[in-house]
Amino acid sequence: MLAKGNLEKSRMVPLNHVRIRDSLWSSYIDLVEKVVIPYQWDALNDRIQHAPPSHAIRNFKIAAGEEQGEFYGMVFQDSDVAKWLEAVAYLLATRNAPHLEKIADETIDLIAKAQHDDGYLNTYYTLKEPGKRWTNLCECHELYCAGHMIEAGVAYYYSTGKRKLLDVVCKLADHIDSVFGPEEGKLKGYDGHQEIELALMKLYEATGNVRYLNLSRFFLEERGKQPHFYDIEADKRGRTVHWENSFMIDEKEYSQAHKPVKEQDRAIGHAVRFVYMGTGMAHVAAEAGDVEMYEACKRLFANMVSRNLYITGAIGSQSRGEAFTTDYDLPNDTAYAETCASIGLIFFAYRMLMLEPKSQYADVLERALYNTVVGGMSRDGKRFFYVNPLEVNPHVCTANHIYHHVKPERQPWFGCACCPPNVARLLASLGQYIYTVQGRTIYTHLYIGGMAEIDIDGTRFVLEQETEYPWNGKIRFTVGTDSETTATLALRIPEWCDHAEVYVNGVLEPVKDLTTDGYIRLSRKWKSGDQVDLTLSMPINRVYGHPLIRHTAGKVAIQRGPLVYCLEEADNGANLHHLLLPKDAEFSLEETNRPIDGMVAIKATALRRNTDNWGDALYKREAKYTLEKVNATFIPYFAWANRGVGEMKVWVEEA
Amino acid sequence: MLAKGNLEKSRMVPLNHVRIRDSLWSSYIDLVEKVVIPYQWDALNDRIQHAPPSHAIRNFKIAAGEEQGEFYGMVFQDSDVAKWLEAVAYLLATRNAPHLEKIADETIDLIAKAQHDDGYLNTYYTLKEPGKRWTNLCECHELYCAGHMIEAGVAYYYSTGKRKLLDVVCKLADHIDSVFGPEEGKLKGYDGHQEIELALMKLYEATGNVRYLNLSRFFLEERGKQPHFYDIEADKRGRTVHWENSFMIDEKEYSQAHKPVKEQDRAIGHAVRFVYMGTGMAHVAAEAGDVEMYEACKRLFANMVSRNLYITGAIGSQSRGEAFTTDYDLPNDTAYAETCASIGLIFFAYRMLMLEPKSQYADVLERALYNTVVGGMSRDGKRFFYVNPLEVNPHVCTANHIYHHVKPERQPWFGCACCPPNVARLLASLGQYIYTVQGRTIYTHLYIGGMAEIDIDGTRFVLEQETEYPWNGKIRFTVGTDSETTATLALRIPEWCDHAEVYVNGVLEPVKDLTTDGYIRLSRKWKSGDQVDLTLSMPINRVYGHPLIRHTAGKVAIQRGPLVYCLEEADNGANLHHLLLPKDAEFSLEETNRPIDGMVAIKATALRRNTDNWGDALYKREAKYTLEKVNATFIPYFAWANRGVGEMKVWVEEA
Repeated sequence: MLAKGNLEKSRMVPLNHVRIRDSLWSSYIDLVEKVVIPYQWDALNDRIQHAPPSHAIRNFKIAAGEEQGEFYGMVFQDSDVAKWLEAVAYLLATRNAPHLEKIADETIDLIAKAQHDDGYLNTYYTLKEPGKRWTNLCECHELYCAGHMIEAGVAYYYSTGKRKLLDVVCKLADHIDSVFGPEEGKLKGYDGHQEIELALMKLYEATGNVRYLNLSRFFLEERGKQPHFYDIEADKRGRTVHWENSFMIDEKEYSQAHKPVKEQDRAIGHAVRFVYMGTGMAHVAAEAGDVEMYEACKRLFANMVSRNLYITGAIGSQSRGEAFTTDYDLPNDTAYAETCASIGLIFFAYRMLMLEPKSQYADVLERALYNTVVGGMSRDGKRFFYVNPLEVNPHVCTANHIYHHVKPERQPWFGCACCPPNVARLLASLGQYIYTVQGRTIYTHLYIGGMAEIDIDGTRFVLEQETEYPWNGKIRFTVGTDSETTATLALRIPEWCDHAEVYVNGVLEPVKDLTTDGYIRLSRKWKSGDQVDLTLSMPINRVYGHPLIRHTAGKVAIQRGPLVYCLEEADNGANLHHLLLPKDAEFSLEETNRPIDGMVAIKATALRRNTDNWGDALYKREAKYTLEKVNATFIPYFAWANRGVGEMKVWVEEA
Repeated sequence: MLAKGNLEKSRMVPLNHVRIRDSLWSSYIDLVEKVVIPYQWDALNDRIQHAPPSHAIRNFKIAAGEEQGEFYGMVFQDSDVAKWLEAVAYLLATRNAPHLEKIADETIDLIAKAQHDDGYLNTYYTLKEPGKRWTNLCECHELYCAGHMIEAGVAYYYSTGKRKLLDVVCKLADHIDSVFGPEEGKLKGYDGHQEIELALMKLYEATGNVRYLNLSRFFLEERGKQPHFYDIEADKRGRTVHWENSFMIDEKEYSQAHKPVKEQDRAIGHAVRFVYMGTGMAHVAAEAGDVEMYEACKRLFANMVSRNLYITGAIGSQSRGEAFTTDYDLPNDTAYAETCASIGLIFFAYRMLMLEPKSQYADVLERALYNTVVGGMSRDGKRFFYVNPLEVNPHVCTANHIYHHVKPERQPWFGCACCPPNVARLLASLGQYIYTVQGRTIYTHLYIGGMAEIDIDGTRFVLEQETEYPWNGKIRFTVGTDSETTATLALRIPEWCDHAEVYVNGVLEPVKDLTTDGYIRLSRKWKSGDQVDLTLSMPINRVYGHPLIRHTAGKVAIQRGPLVYCLEEADNGANLHHLLLPKDAEFSLEETNRPIDGMVAIKATALRRNTDNWGDALYKREAKYTLEKVNATFIPYFAWANRGVGEMKVWVEEA
């Protein structure tokens, strides 16, 4: 078991025990059911006009022998189907959607038909490179695709009780276990893109089969060993490469394979790989009681969030390799900030919370969720951001190649379509991130309205949340229980909140005395009808960046609650670089007149450089401008780019 | 003849009629003779340790049959030799350097031996792709290399009177003329990289052979016609490409071949190609009296300098395609700002001055010369910048790919070594940019100490300049003439100068009344010993960028005279992004205690954010810093990176 600190094992509250009824999130989950999942099914079947082709379902049909044709798409195209299925699975955990379930069942039948007798399952290798299985792990995502299918199989089993896909993925995992491992004659390798590790941990929990835990741990511990697996397998196959201009084999940092994971100490390489790896590591650390692994997780998480995290909860400062760059290098306009990376960050943060319930992890989870992740999808559920910059000037995006990856509008689909189904599965599974339980302590990490049913030593304990969060900081909890139950309610005080008040049945509690690790702990014998009223002060905060971030020097960002705000051209006109926020700017909430979809905007008394008298000269010895008072309107970052193409800016010059 | 305005033909003052004796430039020209040219000869012969190989001389030796081996290097490797020879030629115009002349003569012998009987001359096609001549003009620089050799041949003939290389290049040009042209059976094509056009104009002037003028004009006028030559030749050769991932054939803007040159209206594509094209166009316009061409030159030049020019006289905002991006997009840290492009800008500006002597052209010429071009070489003459950013943070250059092209230190040589010999030839030919003559008017464009001998209608007119420019604004001209001569001395008032005073033989002249087009015009009958004392006020100027340049918003640059200044870490410590220049900052000149090599530095009372109390948090709700008064030291931009690796910044936040 883990040795130090508060390491009693945490447990999830199963998704089907959580119902969300929330002013913000219910509409998103409705959207996932009514629009996103059906839309993505159409995309996977190439029925969306003007969208890049997917062919992902056709690949399975061809591999299953149902159709004739050739494989098309990325080597990891299968994973889009898996993530879509996983999203459907999460949705079915709480909603009755027989139409979607029918499509999912048929898709599972199709997948089962595409599986080889020995358990192998991958349409790319089946159709395009038969006989080349497991010859290019570094570049070709074979175990990554398997991992996603395993996650889908586990999720579908939990939600529906149906075993078919679970059986498929157990057979697949068993096959993988027969190919990889420390035993003589097995491959001592691992995937270039981490994912199988975290998936096997889920399969281990779903089946109790310790072989899956061991295999996950094997993959993690093999990583970065010398002589290097990527070179060994490359030599074996004659050093062919899958990708043009690939640097994956040589630049081992790209896939965090430059040294053993327990020796790593900083966020490096492809951001999604990094956080998926961390998720697997933290899960293994918890289940295997591996203290060294746990320490590595803490180190890697800390470096990432204290030096390489955008204020929007995004990670990955550059497009090359969709990767981290170096500490404090956080450019706003050329950021990569992939939607998937922030989703992976949520996975990692959640697994860290399971290891040690400290609010610092939930703070990061919340930051990613309320800003980059939900911003990754349009308000109509049909368009998506892959890249999430913090500053956009649309007219230069196509003119200067440093912005080649930046789209000023969400897109209907992508040639590499990892993000859309990732958003779908994250939103559909949102319920599972709200609470964790450790012994008799129920941790509330996120303030999202709804109901959770929690098992406390065999007693059914129902916790209801009512809130208009994130628009205000009032949250009411109502307890329901069959019999009086001794338990601790641990309520997170977010990092952005200076003042929290809590009343239990109308009686004010001494918050300061009750708070440890960022959670107010209310311990008592709870009975049905007990009410907890939490009020988190939710002022409009100015936020500043670390002095070593040169991209935020002299600038300020506006945040209220978990929401980072931004300026958009739609409200403030063009040339946002001439808008200044004075140190004494006055802010007010636009609660009644909400510019977008019921969202609270923020008005500020700002200044704008009036440059009308400048003339034509490119450079001048006098800055002939005046500062004019203007009202600036800030909207939540996640809602940007829903009103046409225009400039956007998070960090604003401070005057 | 050109129809409108002041279009009397201008003439150059031949380089061998100008002697430079200048506090700044003499040392550079000494360096070119003693260090740069010998060093580059070693580089071309692969005798520089730790420098990328050149092989350029070996290519000629192999092509000449003197050695065995294979071609190595870029398809345009020959041009490095040509530019080096041209630099030697310019040097020999004013200096006796028999050792260099001997090497040059031998090199010319070698080149002559490498020439085919029909006049063709190109070691790449001779050695590597025999039989493939003139099959890929778009990508392969065949006429570009010819152009550089022609420039060398003309320069060497002017300087030494030796005809051998001139004969070689006439034979080459005649061969080209037999292959290209409007006549039936000839290729209707042109080079992807403009250069032959400006070179043929020089050859036309040197030989009086109008066929060269016509051929130059043909190349310019063919450019951008439909059906497109790049496609025609690509189809002919089966659409093979020379460069991996080449976009040159498809992106016709890259080589300014997207439409006919006379219809073009903006700076676009590869920056060097653009300015070399403009140089050729302006020369053709002047010699052919082509008004449409002249209007196009003005339009293109105006767009470039009013919307796409860095304050340092650099052009090219992005590394992809070494190219322009879009109006007002002038990022400081990711700038390409190639040394060669600023050299080409000088060529273009000079040719515009020949078309119409207006100070706006000389202002640009001076800006490029005193900042980017001279900054392109280290103070020891052995290291060079290819890319000249206006802001550098060394630790991110290798970490974030948007800086992949940026080197925080000058380099000993390059795989693509266009810039070093280009700097050498520009410095060696500096004398020819100081004056132009139109009728009896002698224009002084640059203030550089020395002596010029000018022919005024058969009378020898000697003009001596004495000055410590750019360190102060005092210039004394002394006239020498065999007989009293009626002439106008036209002295440029630089754009940065608010107040000029001029005395003729001690008598103050009314500057305002005498000034047109940016030149003070002093007309009289001059006799030997006449003295003109010009004083240009040279305050320390704050400079601001156009409101649409978002990269200069809220920032200020410091300029004194033609010199743009910058902050360096060596003087000011790291984290230059925390240094602020208040609006009321006091400036002083460091004339006595000069930090680098006799250069005048500027001290300023500045502010620095003291962020010592920040702590570790990446984001905070309070900007816990204080503003401290500090003394900032600015050094001339061109002198940066001569004292080790460190941060540098031109545009400073204004407080």
